[in-house]
Amino acid sequence: MGGFYDEVIASNGVYKFYSDGEWKETTSSRTVKILNPSTNEAVYQVQACTRDEVDTIFDAAKAAQPGWAKTPLWKRADYMHKVAALMKENAQPMANALVKEIAKPAKDALTEVIRSGDLISYTGEEGLRRLGEGKMLVSDSYPGQDRSKICLSQKVPLGVILCIPPFNYPVNLAVSKIAPALMAGNTVVLKPPTQGAASATMMCQAFHKAGLPKGVLNVATGKGSEIGDYLTTHPKVNCVSFTGGDTGISICKKGGMTPYQMELGGKDACIVCADADIDLAAKNIVKGGYSYSGQRCTAVKVVLAAEEIADELVAKVKKGVEGLSVGMPEDDAAITPVISESSANFIEGLVRDAEAKNATFVTPYKREKNLIWPTLIDNVTADMRIAWEEPFGPVMPIIRVKKIQDAIDHCNSNNLALQGCLFTKDINLAIRLSDAMSSGTIQVNAAPARGPDHFPFQGFRDSGIGSQGIQNSLEMMVKVKTTVLNLDQPSYTVG
Amino acid sequence: MGGFYDEVIASNGVYKFYSDGEWKETTSSRTVKILNPSTNEAVYQVQACTRDEVDTIFDAAKAAQPGWAKTPLWKRADYMHKVAALMKENAQPMANALVKEIAKPAKDALTEVIRSGDLISYTGEEGLRRLGEGKMLVSDSYPGQDRSKICLSQKVPLGVILCIPPFNYPVNLAVSKIAPALMAGNTVVLKPPTQGAASATMMCQAFHKAGLPKGVLNVATGKGSEIGDYLTTHPKVNCVSFTGGDTGISICKKGGMTPYQMELGGKDACIVCADADIDLAAKNIVKGGYSYSGQRCTAVKVVLAAEEIADELVAKVKKGVEGLSVGMPEDDAAITPVISESSANFIEGLVRDAEAKNATFVTPYKREKNLIWPTLIDNVTADMRIAWEEPFGPVMPIIRVKKIQDAIDHCNSNNLALQGCLFTKDINLAIRLSDAMSSGTIQVNAAPARGPDHFPFQGFRDSGIGSQGIQNSLEMMVKVKTTVLNLDQPSYTVG
Amino acid sequence: MGGFYDEVIASNGVYKFYSDGEWKETTSSRTVKILNPSTNEAVYQVQACTRDEVDTIFDAAKAAQPGWAKTPLWKRADYMHKVAALMKENAQPMANALVKEIAKPAKDALTEVIRSGDLISYTGEEGLRRLGEGKMLVSDSYPGQDRSKICLSQKVPLGVILCIPPFNYPVNLAVSKIAPALMAGNTVVLKPPTQGAASATMMCQAFHKAGLPKGVLNVATGKGSEIGDYLTTHPKVNCVSFTGGDTGISICKKGGMTPYQMELGGKDACIVCADADIDLAAKNIVKGGYSYSGQRCTAVKVVLAAEEIADELVAKVKKGVEGLSVGMPEDDAAITPVISESSANFIEGLVRDAEAKNATFVTPYKREKNLIWPTLIDNVTADMRIAWEEPFGPVMPIIRVKKIQDAIDHCNSNNLALQGCLFTKDINLAIRLSDAMSSGTIQVNAAPARGPDHFPFQGFRDSGIGSQGIQNSLEMMVKVKTTVLNLDQPSYTVG
Amino acid sequence: MGGFYDEVIASNGVYKFYSDGEWKETTSSRTVKILNPSTNEAVYQVQACTRDEVDTIFDAAKAAQPGWAKTPLWKRADYMHKVAALMKENAQPMANALVKEIAKPAKDALTEVIRSGDLISYTGEEGLRRLGEGKMLVSDSYPGQDRSKICLSQKVPLGVILCIPPFNYPVNLAVSKIAPALMAGNTVVLKPPTQGAASATMMCQAFHKAGLPKGVLNVATGKGSEIGDYLTTHPKVNCVSFTGGDTGISICKKGGMTPYQMELGGKDACIVCADADIDLAAKNIVKGGYSYSGQRCTAVKVVLAAEEIADELVAKVKKGVEGLSVGMPEDDAAITPVISESSANFIEGLVRDAEAKNATFVTPYKREKNLIWPTLIDNVTADMRIAWEEPFGPVMPIIRVKKIQDAIDHCNSNNLALQGCLFTKDINLAIRLSDAMSSGTIQVNAAPARGPDHFPFQGFRDSGIGSQGIQNSLEMMVKVKTTVLNLDQPSYTVG
Repeated sequence: MGGFYDEVIASNGVYKFYSDGEWKETTSSRTVKILNPSTNEAVYQVQACTRDEVDTIFDAAKAAQPGWAKTPLWKRADYMHKVAALMKENAQPMANALVKEIAKPAKDALTEVIRSGDLISYTGEEGLRRLGEGKMLVSDSYPGQDRSKICLSQKVPLGVILCIPPFNYPVNLAVSKIAPALMAGNTVVLKPPTQGAASATMMCQAFHKAGLPKGVLNVATGKGSEIGDYLTTHPKVNCVSFTGGDTGISICKKGGMTPYQMELGGKDACIVCADADIDLAAKNIVKGGYSYSGQRCTAVKVVLAAEEIADELVAKVKKGVEGLSVGMPEDDAAITPVISESSANFIEGLVRDAEAKNATFVTPYKREKNLIWPTLIDNVTADMRIAWEEPFGPVMPIIRVKKIQDAIDHCNSNNLALQGCLFTKDINLAIRLSDAMSSGTIQVNAAPARGPDHFPFQGFRDSGIGSQGIQNSLEMMVKVKTTVLNLDQPSYTVG
Repeated sequence: MGGFYDEVIASNGVYKFYSDGEWKETTSSRTVKILNPSTNEAVYQVQACTRDEVDTIFDAAKAAQPGWAKTPLWKRADYMHKVAALMKENAQPMANALVKEIAKPAKDALTEVIRSGDLISYTGEEGLRRLGEGKMLVSDSYPGQDRSKICLSQKVPLGVILCIPPFNYPVNLAVSKIAPALMAGNTVVLKPPTQGAASATMMCQAFHKAGLPKGVLNVATGKGSEIGDYLTTHPKVNCVSFTGGDTGISICKKGGMTPYQMELGGKDACIVCADADIDLAAKNIVKGGYSYSGQRCTAVKVVLAAEEIADELVAKVKKGVEGLSVGMPEDDAAITPVISESSANFIEGLVRDAEAKNATFVTPYKREKNLIWPTLIDNVTADMRIAWEEPFGPVMPIIRVKKIQDAIDHCNSNNLALQGCLFTKDINLAIRLSDAMSSGTIQVNAAPARGPDHFPFQGFRDSGIGSQGIQNSLEMMVKVKTTVLNLDQPSYTVG
Repeated sequence: MGGFYDEVIASNGVYKFYSDGEWKETTSSRTVKILNPSTNEAVYQVQACTRDEVDTIFDAAKAAQPGWAKTPLWKRADYMHKVAALMKENAQPMANALVKEIAKPAKDALTEVIRSGDLISYTGEEGLRRLGEGKMLVSDSYPGQDRSKICLSQKVPLGVILCIPPFNYPVNLAVSKIAPALMAGNTVVLKPPTQGAASATMMCQAFHKAGLPKGVLNVATGKGSEIGDYLTTHPKVNCVSFTGGDTGISICKKGGMTPYQMELGGKDACIVCADADIDLAAKNIVKGGYSYSGQRCTAVKVVLAAEEIADELVAKVKKGVEGLSVGMPEDDAAITPVISESSANFIEGLVRDAEAKNATFVTPYKREKNLIWPTLIDNVTADMRIAWEEPFGPVMPIIRVKKIQDAIDHCNSNNLALQGCLFTKDINLAIRLSDAMSSGTIQVNAAPARGPDHFPFQGFRDSGIGSQGIQNSLEMMVKVKTTVLNLDQPSYTVG
Repeated sequence: MGGFYDEVIASNGVYKFYSDGEWKETTSSRTVKILNPSTNEAVYQVQACTRDEVDTIFDAAKAAQPGWAKTPLWKRADYMHKVAALMKENAQPMANALVKEIAKPAKDALTEVIRSGDLISYTGEEGLRRLGEGKMLVSDSYPGQDRSKICLSQKVPLGVILCIPPFNYPVNLAVSKIAPALMAGNTVVLKPPTQGAASATMMCQAFHKAGLPKGVLNVATGKGSEIGDYLTTHPKVNCVSFTGGDTGISICKKGGMTPYQMELGGKDACIVCADADIDLAAKNIVKGGYSYSGQRCTAVKVVLAAEEIADELVAKVKKGVEGLSVGMPEDDAAITPVISESSANFIEGLVRDAEAKNATFVTPYKREKNLIWPTLIDNVTADMRIAWEEPFGPVMPIIRVKKIQDAIDHCNSNNLALQGCLFTKDINLAIRLSDAMSSGTIQVNAAPARGPDHFPFQGFRDSGIGSQGIQNSLEMMVKVKTTVLNLDQPSYTVG
């Protein structure tokens, strides 16, 4: 694995946690096992932190925050550049861990790490600018006032941010929270997902080696069922940034008057209009629906096809699906085992329900342990679970619609509303349709996508709260503070 | 009262509630009595809405929202101007109600109504502009991308906003929530405070008479203990904008993944440095501390005086306090009865605790029913409750400090952190001190104040979440939606 | 005419000029005659100000500026609202003057006045906000700096703005300069066009009656050949805002280090693609090309039609053109006499050149004095003057193109580059084409247009410099001033 | 000098010019000699380009512009980072040239180069963001409109920018123009000052070696008297960015409708109030007035001292001035020879005039060739030239004032109005005074300064037009282009 990561792993092979600038082992002697989805056998172990250790971590984060907030913005950005460089230089071992613990295809795993470095660096430069600019307001902009008050409005840190990324991008969705949090002058406690904890932990070594002051970034590992609520309701938490499933809703319900940035998955619809470029649509459905075996928040999760072009579309999608390689992540297969046996069982449940209700299987359903062959299901109807639920697997339902309004109504009836996409050549229809679809982002003529990372990214309804993307994440992790200078007499600047 | 308000009041004298464009009486036949603080006798009654009626109100608001969001921005602004004009034309009866139900001095009551009209009008013009401008982002601003994606980022409505103003500004703090909510394309359910419910209800008549479409604004009245939680946890609520006490924290705790705009009171400190203009400081302490008998979120609630100037300051504040008239709101007295007997008892508790711990009473404590004479208490120490708690009455503690850092530490140790103020002539000290005080707003050389209403206004820690002020309230009541145009080839605009 | 305008006109019937808050007659005893385009006879007279009077006017403007800049922003906005109301209440006489002196159809004349009132009012509210907000920058956003400098950046007035509107919108294009200039704290000298001087002068009475302080707005009339250069090169001029023809270029050449906002006409092209909605295109060409007899900067001035649809397009445009009424402005005819005999002669020159080079006259050319019948000319080629020059008359050339790139090349070869429009249904083509057209604004699927007035409006190359539209005009009429607070030690705001 | 710069210098030792990606020698065979201020002997020679060569250079720049504007923003930023790295790596030879041709003290010369690299890099990241974000406006923000128009407003390149830096910062003030010009998609023609031409030319080698496409940056050298006007009035120039003396005004007078960014020097006043920190003021006057022998636009050029503290101030400044080392730039002396004999003569003229009018010489005037000893002149009065004119040498006048208003009046009476500074501890006075001083920037409690480079920087009146600083220079080098999407029906985005 190389010397860079040596201190991250204890002599017994268990990954350490990170607190107050040091890699540590739990006093509990307990560990959490991480299963390899390709084998369902343990591949890594991480520390099962105790609640006392969690308290100590938060103490460290809290204590470090005021000093970190007094670090010049350009120095914070400099740290980000150093971290980015270190991550890129030491990317391969981290990518290997992604292959093992979440079965991400090898090339995609490496891309995730590299892209994460870019994101950190970009966030550094963005934060440097965005957080160094406040507003100056004068009082005579309001009726009845003369110019004797000057209001300076600044963006100040929230305090300690708890960052909880999901298993599918444990590195990238960690840094997309950590980097803006830090640039904004906050300190961070990271709780990685169990699967993904090894790579996320390794990632933090880049921050450590970059010389970040003690306590500014900390990592707690352990079973969500044991320390999850303890973390999210901790009195020293000033903001929770979470990506994952509907656990996010219960975090909000258990929590208090805390800012939440939540991204909770979607059932991204793809509306294909009668005038669409069918080749383009088909290509995007295959790539958008089956990449990383459909385990992406922004995967296409239901196709709503105008019936005039449905036959042609289905034929073309079928051809694309049949071309996908199926196998192991180490071999860079397109379709790899889904994250866990329970996930595979859940997906199978959706498939069996559709089968029972007479959906048409354009490609056959097939499963070996966690590995599910890419499945295309036509003539899905609103009474099937798969019309509404998120499989997070390589299974795509197609619903045929008579009118575009039916497609819109279907999308807008779902509580999940992250992204959506539509295919049409017509400029009027494109805008009317994107305006009518109630989801955080509508992609016109391409599959849903989180990036490029400076674009805003957000879900509606049960898909989340708060907006992400580099700029918006920076804005989410600050609050407004104002200083009002009250003058002894009105003063107007001369030109 | 005049014909304008006729339909607001039922034949039995009980104020109606307002739902789906109509003034209605509850089917419960139950009412809530509103006590006059000056007499502790009932002066008004409002409907005690049932939960079914609450459901109906939310149904109306939800149903009206999409249509309202499709109303051109300038038409929404036009409604605001009409409402503002109607409120101003019919201000006196509403002001009279404020005098009766919350004992607000007569002139201040009229000012509240007029100022509320200005605020509505200003919000109309602000929303017209702020919500009509989105961002256009190009993809090649991010490494590795060409310009084949154009991202249009817009601000879209949240849905139905529940607005809950407090008793002390039942009209002004209602419209500061309603106007931005409406301009942003949301519909509103207003839950007025019990004391203040008559005037807040009358205020809604201006919206009704301005011809606002049905269901866009609705008013539910009733006992907080009966329908409070039902309202705040209602599944059709998309945002809660609340001003009040620590009830706000429990609203958040009971709620879910909902945006909250909360302003929950403060213990606004006034730091007087050794080099301060003592006359200016004294004047601001008297006005800032005793106006409306101290029942203001932004009242000065503790003075931290440099010991070098403490004697002089206390003498000057004493003189000011002794000049305050004490009596009935109808006579426009400066000091009027506090809102309720329980409030007066709470204040008395703080006073007795200070007395027992040997604080110095610069002016004597005196009370008749709810009327408390303005009290100035010197040599307050950190072991007294009044050093930390918010009396919401005409009682001011003075703490003498040896070093300015002690004053800062005192402020920053309090969980209440709305505003603060400081008095110094020195430019370096002014900025260093305002930077060091951890509260939402720091006023340099003037008492804390919410206005002018276009300045940001927010509390830290237990004082709230989200920022107010006209611009920030508009921003709080929208979410981001993005449309990404994916082009078939890169395209760069020529100059 | 009504009492409102009484003082504007001297006892001898000559319109006065306006200086330092008073309506005055020139000491020169000379006047300028304004010809009615419908009769070529004098209909009004205005004062021929002397250079000394011009000096006095500038002295008044200069002297008034500092005081005006110290008027609270909301008071400036209040003046704007009063002016707008007065203009609308007294619109008809001003509209009548427009009919007489520039032959504007009666309804359009009234619309111009009303719309001008709206613009003034909107500018008031826009300026109130936009100019009351500055930036606050901290030093540690730049490498190597700590946070010991705070930079406050504000927008301050330029000083005295010379506003020169053109004959075709003498009221509207006067107020689109005056209102932002005033809101920004500048004072104004208005030089109306000769034709249009009566209505522009009347317009200023609304400012006078609104009680604007003396010297804040002033009006100089006279022959451009006598006082034009004297005005534009006057040492007290701090900015020239001019709309008109290529005189604007010579103003810049004669001037010095002065900000110029120039809008100098265009040769707005209309590209009709093969897939366009032909009815929509034809309708827009007729309305966009022939309104006010083509005397609009943003008139469609050349059609570039894909040859596949050219026949159909020409037929449909022909039908539209034949439906236009021709006659006198008092009768609200669509086509009225052009502004002057020399203008009519110039237009005829372009027509005769096209005729000589074998263009096809789809509708026949016909002229009676200044009245020219609407003429549609097909098969125009690049060797004809009318392919490149701006007729400012009811004459439309159509060029047929084999490839869209030919159309783009034609547009981009012209030094006039104000707006352009294109008709296509295809979203990719629409964006690619609008990106490729080098003009200030590209309208997709509609004729060029200046409004709505909050949209930016600007020309490229010889069509102007600086951007207009309410927001951008406000920005053009200010400059940046910064105050840097240098602290005695670094200070970072705590959250 | 090292291999990096080899190709910049011809075999005959003459520096080449740079056109269309190649280093070239003029066909004129003529050169311009660069004198070393320390010796008044030629130290370098540069090509004297012919007008034909200037034409060729502009042809190259014009031809390269469209392609450069289609380079993704992040790639442009990447070039900037490469250039910055190359400049820093090869800084010493460039710094040496600065020592030789402009007599800049050795350490300052190196700092100029390094700081220039930082500025280029920062501008890259700034442009990447700022130019990738446009606005999206909807039509219903304006009265009477529904939402059927969407206006996309973007910032597009101007075309070819002519950059003319001054002798005192030939590298830094070149890159502060070139970097924003390039990031904004423009191409550049650089005309270096004669003294400074060698270092500025060397600087361009970093762009060449970074692989910038041909024609994107070009350098023309020659005598200003021969090609100056030819360059500034060249028809292919789309913007002139000039820093220097009042030549800038004549550039504007000779030019046409072209955007100008001009910074033309100042007479920066330093007002010292009676309550000021005198040590701080004295320190800033010495450093701010005498650095680089006063040859800085932002040097303190006149002190206006409250008479109460004038004696103390003068004594402290005197002590500081006497501590300045005088000598050769190679030895890093504080005071080095001024740029030329004619400059030294001009400075002497100002000194002799003050002497003749009985000013008090606190330190004696002494000169050897171009080397002038630092001179402090007290009791300067308004009838002396040095009270108003800019010496650009190590000579400082002190004017004693009875009232602060006299100081303000003196500042505001000068046509030069770049920066100003003031010293007071009083927060009210600081703001009132900075508001009252009519200059581009007012420094409170520090000497005038251009940096940090992200702060806006601009002069009023004869001190310039347009604002600089990294953000504002980017804004100056673009224009607005709008695309309006006209929909077939109104469309409002749902939330």
